[in-house]
Amino acid sequence: MSRISPPDLSALAAAQARQQQLTKPAGSLGQLESLACRLAALQGREVPLPLSPAISVFAGDHGVCAEGVSAYPQEVTGAMVANFVHGGAAISVLARVNQARLEVVDAGVAAKLDGLPVVHAKVRAGSGNIRREAAMSADEVQQALEVGRNAAQRAIASGATLLIAGDMGIGNTTPSAALICRLSGHSVDSIVGRGTGVDDAGLALKRQVVADALARVATAGLDGRALLAELGGLEIAAIAGFYLEGAAQGVPLLLDGFISTAAALAAQEIDPAVTPWFIASHCSQETGHQLALAALGLTPLVDFGLRLGEGSGAALAIPLLQQAIALHAGMATFAEAGVAGKNG
Amino acid sequence: MSRISPPDLSALAAAQARQQQLTKPAGSLGQLESLACRLAALQGREVPLPLSPAISVFAGDHGVCAEGVSAYPQEVTGAMVANFVHGGAAISVLARVNQARLEVVDAGVAAKLDGLPVVHAKVRAGSGNIRREAAMSADEVQQALEVGRNAAQRAIASGATLLIAGDMGIGNTTPSAALICRLSGHSVDSIVGRGTGVDDAGLALKRQVVADALARVATAGLDGRALLAELGGLEIAAIAGFYLEGAAQGVPLLLDGFISTAAALAAQEIDPAVTPWFIASHCSQETGHQLALAALGLTPLVDFGLRLGEGSGAALAIPLLQQAIALHAGMATFAEAGVAGKNG
Repeated sequence: MSRISPPDLSALAAAQARQQQLTKPAGSLGQLESLACRLAALQGREVPLPLSPAISVFAGDHGVCAEGVSAYPQEVTGAMVANFVHGGAAISVLARVNQARLEVVDAGVAAKLDGLPVVHAKVRAGSGNIRREAAMSADEVQQALEVGRNAAQRAIASGATLLIAGDMGIGNTTPSAALICRLSGHSVDSIVGRGTGVDDAGLALKRQVVADALARVATAGLDGRALLAELGGLEIAAIAGFYLEGAAQGVPLLLDGFISTAAALAAQEIDPAVTPWFIASHCSQETGHQLALAALGLTPLVDFGLRLGEGSGAALAIPLLQQAIALHAGMATFAEAGVAGKNG
Repeated sequence: MSRISPPDLSALAAAQARQQQLTKPAGSLGQLESLACRLAALQGREVPLPLSPAISVFAGDHGVCAEGVSAYPQEVTGAMVANFVHGGAAISVLARVNQARLEVVDAGVAAKLDGLPVVHAKVRAGSGNIRREAAMSADEVQQALEVGRNAAQRAIASGATLLIAGDMGIGNTTPSAALICRLSGHSVDSIVGRGTGVDDAGLALKRQVVADALARVATAGLDGRALLAELGGLEIAAIAGFYLEGAAQGVPLLLDGFISTAAALAAQEIDPAVTPWFIASHCSQETGHQLALAALGLTPLVDFGLRLGEGSGAALAIPLLQQAIALHAGMATFAEAGVAGKNG
């Protein structure tokens, strides 16, 4: 029995009818029209209200870094968390520009972050090495999902009407790729990419690590939670919980890149009712992101060749959603403007 | 002797060096990085300032409508101009959302617009039918270019640091396609599209009309002004003048869709020094827009399947430019944040 309701199809139909009456050739605003109508369905209003966005960035470390899968050392995770809260990271800037609430959550960073103004919800100090062992226990998955659920509740309580999850975790494209392969059925070669920038040898190693992780659990009939335990990561499980709670509370979920989409697939595996609440923002440069989005039935709005994470691609797309709503709400109809329609 | 200066290559190099120091994997912000660097070069500053955008929408009518090339009746041009200034059109909404100055200029609408708060600069009441005759005289081209130059001067005098030209003119994808074919060398079939939505028969007719217009002037060695006279339109020539003046005053020019790109190609033919001042915003759904942008050496930032004109696609992209600048200006460097760089 899902806690998640479906979008409002009567609001969708009313919004689609309104689009036909606005002073433009039908369909001439392209994807902005369908985007406005989707937001109408998710808000349950023919004319959606402007969005109040909130970004929760979840941080965690990954035991699989011991295999050499990342171009950056693990201590960068904690250093970047400090950068987020000190205002110097990309997501810090984009949250300011877009007037979005920004919260950073330690779901499982290896380093101690005691002095930092983050949400201290460390489930454990980094996950297990998924090439050789589970990322975490079943109980730890539950805790991490709860960390995400709590973050969604805080954001919504503070007035958020659009939820963005960001990620920070050196090495986290490796567990994300493993989850996407397992949940979408696509091959390791089509999904595993260079992350923040490994070279050819690093890419070959990373593919082998993902293949080994998948082989380790290949025969088991695992549900979404079990897959997060075997192949996931602490911030990835937290993001899945964040999405499940956001959808349960009827708030649209704007996906970011490769990691957030892996978490979305895990959330979908836990409760398929979450899926209509996802909106794709950008297509990441990371190999396999487009396939992962397609596995959710989603098409990205933009493709800037980003590969940063943090929620940055989703944050960049906030003004596009706001403009789609503003057009839908603010344009005159043909009748209001006294403009003639199409010939014949 | 061009009045237009080249972009500042030392500012470009300084901006590129700064991008390498920001707290992100090198290149991970993709096109946002190159966009920030281009704006740095155009502003002549390592760290560009936030943009103050201005939109000038130029309206004109087209004698070629008599051939049946548009899905809408010609009186829609004047009615939409009224809608622009009354705030109900897409571009009215997007100007408000993006805090952009909006000015509407009557460069050659067939109807009288005496009562409307627009810039009254009608060169003539609609162009000639380019299938059978010149769109306008050489003297009228000069006047229309001057209408655009004056609009750019007003926008810059009011503080604009980013110029957007929009268009309104029922039938204006036909002269635009003719100009793009002639100036890019591409075939009629690869450039002519459905505009606001003609059916298959309408598309075939439109292609024949463009082919006839091109054949009418095929043998002549015509410069940019002469091509605007033979194949252009009053709002198209005004946009070309707007671009030439903006570039001469060192202000970046954000292109919109098919019509503005045709005007940009004409401006390039008049003075090739204008070209580095163009930034492409979106790729229109109109057949041939991508090829027209490529003829200017440009790649669009986004593709939402728009086919509206008015400057709408460019306006939608304003927040992307602002965010690219904010990231470039506001992110901490690795040294400032105490974050380690790449392994090895």
